[in-house]
Amino acid sequence: MDNTIANSPVHLTMRAGPGQPEPSPQLQALYHGFERELLVPLWTGIGELMPQQPRSQAAPHVWRWERLLALAEQAGQLVPVGRGGERRAIALANPSLGGRPYATPTLWAAIQYLMPGEDAPEHRHTQHAFRFVVEGEGVWTVVNGDSVRMARGDFLPQAGWNWHAHLNAADRPMAWIDGLDIPFAYYTESQFFEFGRESLPPTERVTPLRSRSERLWGYPGLRPLSQVGALPGTPLLVYRWADTDRALDEQLALEAEGHAATLSPGHAAVRYTNPTTGADVLPTIRAEMHRLRPGAQTRSRREVGSAVFQVFDGRGTVHVGERSWAVQRGDLFVVPSWLPYAAQADAASRLDLFRFSDAPIFEALHAHRVREDGA
Amino acid sequence: MDNTIANSPVHLTMRAGPGQPEPSPQLQALYHGFERELLVPLWTGIGELMPQQPRSQAAPHVWRWERLLALAEQAGQLVPVGRGGERRAIALANPSLGGRPYATPTLWAAIQYLMPGEDAPEHRHTQHAFRFVVEGEGVWTVVNGDSVRMARGDFLPQAGWNWHAHLNAADRPMAWIDGLDIPFAYYTESQFFEFGRESLPPTERVTPLRSRSERLWGYPGLRPLSQVGALPGTPLLVYRWADTDRALDEQLALEAEGHAATLSPGHAAVRYTNPTTGADVLPTIRAEMHRLRPGAQTRSRREVGSAVFQVFDGRGTVHVGERSWAVQRGDLFVVPSWLPYAAQADAASRLDLFRFSDAPIFEALHAHRVREDGA
Amino acid sequence: MDNTIANSPVHLTMRAGPGQPEPSPQLQALYHGFERELLVPLWTGIGELMPQQPRSQAAPHVWRWERLLALAEQAGQLVPVGRGGERRAIALANPSLGGRPYATPTLWAAIQYLMPGEDAPEHRHTQHAFRFVVEGEGVWTVVNGDSVRMARGDFLPQAGWNWHAHLNAADRPMAWIDGLDIPFAYYTESQFFEFGRESLPPTERVTPLRSRSERLWGYPGLRPLSQVGALPGTPLLVYRWADTDRALDEQLALEAEGHAATLSPGHAAVRYTNPTTGADVLPTIRAEMHRLRPGAQTRSRREVGSAVFQVFDGRGTVHVGERSWAVQRGDLFVVPSWLPYAAQADAASRLDLFRFSDAPIFEALHAHRVREDGA
Amino acid sequence: MDNTIANSPVHLTMRAGPGQPEPSPQLQALYHGFERELLVPLWTGIGELMPQQPRSQAAPHVWRWERLLALAEQAGQLVPVGRGGERRAIALANPSLGGRPYATPTLWAAIQYLMPGEDAPEHRHTQHAFRFVVEGEGVWTVVNGDSVRMARGDFLPQAGWNWHAHLNAADRPMAWIDGLDIPFAYYTESQFFEFGRESLPPTERVTPLRSRSERLWGYPGLRPLSQVGALPGTPLLVYRWADTDRALDEQLALEAEGHAATLSPGHAAVRYTNPTTGADVLPTIRAEMHRLRPGAQTRSRREVGSAVFQVFDGRGTVHVGERSWAVQRGDLFVVPSWLPYAAQADAASRLDLFRFSDAPIFEALHAHRVREDGA
Repeated sequence: MDNTIANSPVHLTMRAGPGQPEPSPQLQALYHGFERELLVPLWTGIGELMPQQPRSQAAPHVWRWERLLALAEQAGQLVPVGRGGERRAIALANPSLGGRPYATPTLWAAIQYLMPGEDAPEHRHTQHAFRFVVEGEGVWTVVNGDSVRMARGDFLPQAGWNWHAHLNAADRPMAWIDGLDIPFAYYTESQFFEFGRESLPPTERVTPLRSRSERLWGYPGLRPLSQVGALPGTPLLVYRWADTDRALDEQLALEAEGHAATLSPGHAAVRYTNPTTGADVLPTIRAEMHRLRPGAQTRSRREVGSAVFQVFDGRGTVHVGERSWAVQRGDLFVVPSWLPYAAQADAASRLDLFRFSDAPIFEALHAHRVREDGA
Repeated sequence: MDNTIANSPVHLTMRAGPGQPEPSPQLQALYHGFERELLVPLWTGIGELMPQQPRSQAAPHVWRWERLLALAEQAGQLVPVGRGGERRAIALANPSLGGRPYATPTLWAAIQYLMPGEDAPEHRHTQHAFRFVVEGEGVWTVVNGDSVRMARGDFLPQAGWNWHAHLNAADRPMAWIDGLDIPFAYYTESQFFEFGRESLPPTERVTPLRSRSERLWGYPGLRPLSQVGALPGTPLLVYRWADTDRALDEQLALEAEGHAATLSPGHAAVRYTNPTTGADVLPTIRAEMHRLRPGAQTRSRREVGSAVFQVFDGRGTVHVGERSWAVQRGDLFVVPSWLPYAAQADAASRLDLFRFSDAPIFEALHAHRVREDGA
Repeated sequence: MDNTIANSPVHLTMRAGPGQPEPSPQLQALYHGFERELLVPLWTGIGELMPQQPRSQAAPHVWRWERLLALAEQAGQLVPVGRGGERRAIALANPSLGGRPYATPTLWAAIQYLMPGEDAPEHRHTQHAFRFVVEGEGVWTVVNGDSVRMARGDFLPQAGWNWHAHLNAADRPMAWIDGLDIPFAYYTESQFFEFGRESLPPTERVTPLRSRSERLWGYPGLRPLSQVGALPGTPLLVYRWADTDRALDEQLALEAEGHAATLSPGHAAVRYTNPTTGADVLPTIRAEMHRLRPGAQTRSRREVGSAVFQVFDGRGTVHVGERSWAVQRGDLFVVPSWLPYAAQADAASRLDLFRFSDAPIFEALHAHRVREDGA
Repeated sequence: MDNTIANSPVHLTMRAGPGQPEPSPQLQALYHGFERELLVPLWTGIGELMPQQPRSQAAPHVWRWERLLALAEQAGQLVPVGRGGERRAIALANPSLGGRPYATPTLWAAIQYLMPGEDAPEHRHTQHAFRFVVEGEGVWTVVNGDSVRMARGDFLPQAGWNWHAHLNAADRPMAWIDGLDIPFAYYTESQFFEFGRESLPPTERVTPLRSRSERLWGYPGLRPLSQVGALPGTPLLVYRWADTDRALDEQLALEAEGHAATLSPGHAAVRYTNPTTGADVLPTIRAEMHRLRPGAQTRSRREVGSAVFQVFDGRGTVHVGERSWAVQRGDLFVVPSWLPYAAQADAASRLDLFRFSDAPIFEALHAHRVREDGA
């Protein structure tokens, strides 16, 4: 019996305090009984388990783009890309999440790096993914045989269970960031994965300026009649920077003309949406681009769930919980659940921030909450 | 009592036949009783009332653009536009619907005509509307103070209960077509109407190339964060021809490259959608643009509910029920419920067809049915 | 050409007035042109076509149960039930709807009468239907082979396209009311109909106390795992009076105990719902039972769309638009669109009112509006 | 620098194998760089992180009711119930989840025990909860002031953010099980909690046979008109055993009469649903009751997500993954994600199984998958 207790993963300690039973030998025996039977009483852990409000395990943290890129370049020299490892992707590990490759408890974020002429082999998985390009060009992501060009500012969502590979058709390496819901799928034990073909056939090694997806879906408010009905993930495989940039500029221009168009003064923002539903591009991931006019700042905001940001352009200062950082192009930082977040552009520079979060999960489950200061 | 019968709107006649009672003096007395009490037995009219399949009151019919335009031009000379009459709009009256201004039992379609310098006064109504421009330019529709330019090929949806006026800022008259759900709203007795301001203030008499609506919403898959949530009608006030034209061309090009993109060989089509839902632009009206490659034909198709078409460009032949017509630019024709419809482009001309229908009503009520031949 | 005009269903008259063009020979010629080309200008009819608010074609009217029943009994003697006539159903014809069998523009309501030993033959149609029993018992409605007993107070919804027949297994005649969306389906030309078997096989000529539908679905909040997913119409084929009665009593009791449970003081009401969605039992028909405590009255209320009421029990006074009637058990009356409606129970009698309406149509299309006085 | 590495939570090891880079001093330096910068390459952990199919951290396990109850009784003697500890609830700790009080990665399940005259104090939290009573009676759960009686077989769902307390009004202790989504909310960091009143006022210390919730909502297919609209969690606070029992019996009876009513031969099942939506009672928790006829067995089934079962009655054998157990009344066992599960009733005993799972999470996110053998 003692043996059983010794082997039990459950370890209970008598404690004094409000809501706690009086320590006693009988209580000690009872706790041993719980341990033996794999039981944990609520009163020993309720404060940790059911806090008054979200108290994130994750920490605010910033990763500097120059250091990420330097390490990715070294990896480009030392680490081949191929079946088994699948991708030369290097993930952010939140400093408070035990060394696991989790930017936040639900989100995975990585820099991916591909050398000239390299392919990343085809596979598919139920995890939802996207690519976002902070600099460079020359790589095509091939989705179900459709080659999609990647260039600075482009956002490429990738709904789960679609075959995909990457193809560097240029004479230079290229880096970009990947975002996925890997930790969420891992934790909830809901993921599937399959290997695809070992290499792309010549007919798919093409590098068109516009993908078939854009040719079919890339028009505001138009959908092909050959494909009606709501899809859980977006069929539009890339959202081009020219559109995003113009949309943000126009919001600021409309604001200057006296019209309601921005989130708050000087703060423009767009959300990437699924044209078949008008909702988020992916069932578990929200993605947005924010632009602050020089000197402008966002409202301070808390939100259930976590987010990862990458500075797309400009310079500014961001505040997450008790932390603040000066940031610039390429820097990545995380905002854990329910910590207040605010950003401010430098006086001489606008600030463009790419943001992704797990908000669709909470909205789908009626668990989303937001609190804004000064709203 | 006889007097009452004489005044009753109910008139019943004894008939012989299957399912009918034997005529007799007693039956006659019973029928008089029904008339007096405002009652109609099912057995006297079930065949008419509950047919085996839709048997439309409406007839297939074509209206020729040149004649419509000529009459509209005369109206431009003789009929002022102003409060009370509201619009110089001339509606199609289906030949089988008793002279009422109904293109089909549910849809209203008109040519609207505005002289240089004229305004059509501001009002709003719960009926959903759109404009579609088969030729010309120079008129702006002002929706809640947002001026929207109209030009050939543009589609301007107008969800119910938004203020709107028209403004001809050019030195030439302009004509376009209006589509509304007026007959449906009238029949179901569900409409409201309000007059707006007598004239637009100078600040709204502007003629920008791009409306505020386009500047906020006119990007594929992007939505402003200042306006989230699903709206019943589209916030995008115009769908420009350049996009529609390109989308159709690309479908045919993709087909030629061997990809699934068209509805059937040589038949490209797009649906105008509400970017906040991915569904139809208006709760009661579906709108689409179809393109047939020279010589191509559509599948023959029956559908619950009715549709109105306008030839946007090209020449071809259309078949509706037992009728067939050669059609060309501007011609309008109607397809009553459940009549087979097919179209064919001339060998030397592609055929572009704008189409609107009441399908969203039936889809919302789970009553939609389609039957296609050769699908 | 004159000939054409003479034959045109369109007839236009020059009128003077605000918004109207000046009568002149040229205008007359233009109007002839419109008639010839099957066109109707908006300015000649906008006031009728687009009123400020719904102005129903239908009139408020009451039908007295004793007279309906007497005529139905005579029909029982004179009119056989069988294939072709299908049902011995006698429909209310609103006095302002031209003698057509329409209680309101969208709703059909009839008394149906079946003699001992008679069957009403099997058929199915896409029109949605229900039966409501104000008195009597002994008839079973057989839906897809499932025999459903009918008794006073029972409500039997019948979603479109299910096979159904009626079977009088008693030694007395029985009457009940039928409600359908026949006029709506007729007007929108969206209906299908099929004849079924000429007679029910002996295995289906059974008269169980509880139908299979009740045995599967008749438990609050429970659904069989063999049948998951949302259905457009309810799978529960009968809502028994004992439940409805108790639900209404409890609302009044809760109100008396100080809890929010009624619509307004002394006014209890339940809506029949589809257990697979929580929404209305049928896609086009809402059905409810209302109970007023002795002396209590409802709030005055206007609503887009029309309703038909039957007094289930008690005595009271109802007000519809400018009309008022004292009503009692079995009386039927209609409330046209947007006319104010209120009811009051007699001081010495509670008043139970069964009500059905077309509200789901307008809710599905985002066109529903309600205005209540004193809310 | 070494210092930084030593402190980093990230620890990377060079390994040989398919998809892995060749170990080398340069690679070691690169890995040190990753550790220093809080980075984890995908290729070192993809097999664990993105498995081919769910590979649960949790183990199949059974907890025996008699032992749970004995420990709960001892806790009743030694552990007071009050503010701070909140509940005398003793949670199942899956043997493979590190001693945390998680039955599965997403679900918390506990036995709760209340002594005569004791109260559990009022609080509310966003975690969704339910109670299920395997034996006993005498406790009332008070939800927003509405006292709900608990007795054997009753299921009491409790949507998040409602105030609730427990009140033992009997002269005997009572035990029941609680189920919540605590681990899911904890992991996703989405929970809120508030303390309520220290004690219930005398007006709420009542013990009615029927709660107000049942009086308003406890009728098949009827909803109060004072409360329309969809609610995320069910407003019906208790599903009584008499209904559940009868529903299961009827499914087996219908099966015996030759009708489709069961999931598979001899296997009846009902799902508890939210009457305002027809969907699951709670946004994150599905709850069902299953009944196997003596000797009958379920199909073998795998499902994304995890479940907890309690034997409500009877005896049988269950198989989960590689494990099998003979089970009887009160025994609890868990089915981890994607492990095959099957159950069989003893030849001489039917087997009633209460089951709850996290399936609504995956359905809402389009991530649900089921595989059945012999379906």
